[in-house]
Amino acid sequence: MKLMRVGDRGDERPAVRTGDGRVLGLAALTPDIDGAFLAGGGPDRVRAALEAGGLPEMDVEGLRVGAPIARPGKVVCVGLNYRDHAAETGASIPGRPVVFMKDPGTVVGPYDGVLIPRGSTRTDWEVELGVVIGRRARYLEDAEEALACVAGYAVSHDVSEREFQLDHSPQWDLGKSCETFNPLGPWLVTADEVPHPQGLTLRLSVNGVGRQHGGTHDMIFPVGEIIRYLSQYMVLEPGDLINTGTPAGVALGLPGTPYLRAGDTVELSIDGLGGQRQTLANA
Amino acid sequence: MKLMRVGDRGDERPAVRTGDGRVLGLAALTPDIDGAFLAGGGPDRVRAALEAGGLPEMDVEGLRVGAPIARPGKVVCVGLNYRDHAAETGASIPGRPVVFMKDPGTVVGPYDGVLIPRGSTRTDWEVELGVVIGRRARYLEDAEEALACVAGYAVSHDVSEREFQLDHSPQWDLGKSCETFNPLGPWLVTADEVPHPQGLTLRLSVNGVGRQHGGTHDMIFPVGEIIRYLSQYMVLEPGDLINTGTPAGVALGLPGTPYLRAGDTVELSIDGLGGQRQTLANA
Repeated sequence: MKLMRVGDRGDERPAVRTGDGRVLGLAALTPDIDGAFLAGGGPDRVRAALEAGGLPEMDVEGLRVGAPIARPGKVVCVGLNYRDHAAETGASIPGRPVVFMKDPGTVVGPYDGVLIPRGSTRTDWEVELGVVIGRRARYLEDAEEALACVAGYAVSHDVSEREFQLDHSPQWDLGKSCETFNPLGPWLVTADEVPHPQGLTLRLSVNGVGRQHGGTHDMIFPVGEIIRYLSQYMVLEPGDLINTGTPAGVALGLPGTPYLRAGDTVELSIDGLGGQRQTLANA
Repeated sequence: MKLMRVGDRGDERPAVRTGDGRVLGLAALTPDIDGAFLAGGGPDRVRAALEAGGLPEMDVEGLRVGAPIARPGKVVCVGLNYRDHAAETGASIPGRPVVFMKDPGTVVGPYDGVLIPRGSTRTDWEVELGVVIGRRARYLEDAEEALACVAGYAVSHDVSEREFQLDHSPQWDLGKSCETFNPLGPWLVTADEVPHPQGLTLRLSVNGVGRQHGGTHDMIFPVGEIIRYLSQYMVLEPGDLINTGTPAGVALGLPGTPYLRAGDTVELSIDGLGGQRQTLANA
């Protein structure tokens, strides 16, 4: 299923997108697509309601598409998780996942504007496979147990300011947590529809020029291992978001490629998870 | 005022502690001590209700004291922010605040048990001045404007696993985000009662042996500057927590001092903000 949220920011309504492109409202089933919904059997109730029929069709013409989940309790990111991206940034292949965090308040809709922070000269793009947790995860044993904790997947844009990230602090969070820096969606595609999370193609272009074209097969630490690993250090809760790293092709790794500027347009997509489009503006 | 939350975890009720030690319930004024309460004039309503009289006294005998605020939207930390602590860890005085994040789910009550993560041999203590934001902060001009965004202050225990923090990743978040790693409280003391946040004494002992005894005057970046600085990079929201760094005396900086083990007791306090006491147990 493709779960989504439509409406103004802070006033999104839960919905499900059908195979033929209609959008059906879920207000009768849940107030939101959040941790309580995901952990409490919400997706099963939506599935049953879809089979039974009767969910009301929404008129979404002109409505904003929000992030497909409510504000996460945390956003955990894995850096340098694609061999080709580690190589382009001059980093060695990490022996363990490189883990950092973003401000959960950075999560916005897939077509919302992205703001270039004041003073920024190195705002960069990163298409990533976003993983949304559906079940509390703590000291998991193996990747199989870990994958059973996944509610679904979404396109995630881990926008990054490289000067803030690399020069202003030895800790990356500062360059990852700027306002609007995590467009998510358009859909949360439930895990049953993504049987091969390591077989997805990711693409990103800037102003129509292809910049990233990679595959999740190239991840150093696959999704199940990331979740198992993180669960040894922290408790993952339903509704949390994990950004699993980006393939090669970011501005940081392409000498001479301009960083993002106001007016630029970024488009990104992952097979089966839909596409995003953002226009940049100055904060 | 000293705002607090009492009751079982996830079921805390808002309250205010009077000068003579009584605890008055605030359920009639607000469902919780959270961002909406702090930003929406909640503290003023409590002040007026206190003056008018009539708030019901709660029988708190045997009740758990929770963290004084609901789960924060984010927990932002400043590392190496005391001259003596930077020196003891062998780090140079940073030219900018060193910023990292903790999982907001780590926030627990001031007397709750703290869990030593599985596989940990270097779980360490850090008494810190916690700052709770009361007003949305974005691109603030100066420290005065920044201090006007503070709702109040609380004792914050930034528990840290040093091997996870320093050896398992170049990014510190992993060693800062373990379950129960941020006891907070007992009170949120409103900013009007803390006119000199740079004049506070912090103390921490382990099993009755004094380990940390410092003063916020020794901060490299004072509270107002931390908030102003952070607001250039991220949006601070009401209810967010900032941990402002720890003075010297952590195990990491005291060669030969044992790290925390199950059964150990940590006590910490800050002038006017109350005290905490935690017993360690294995996760």
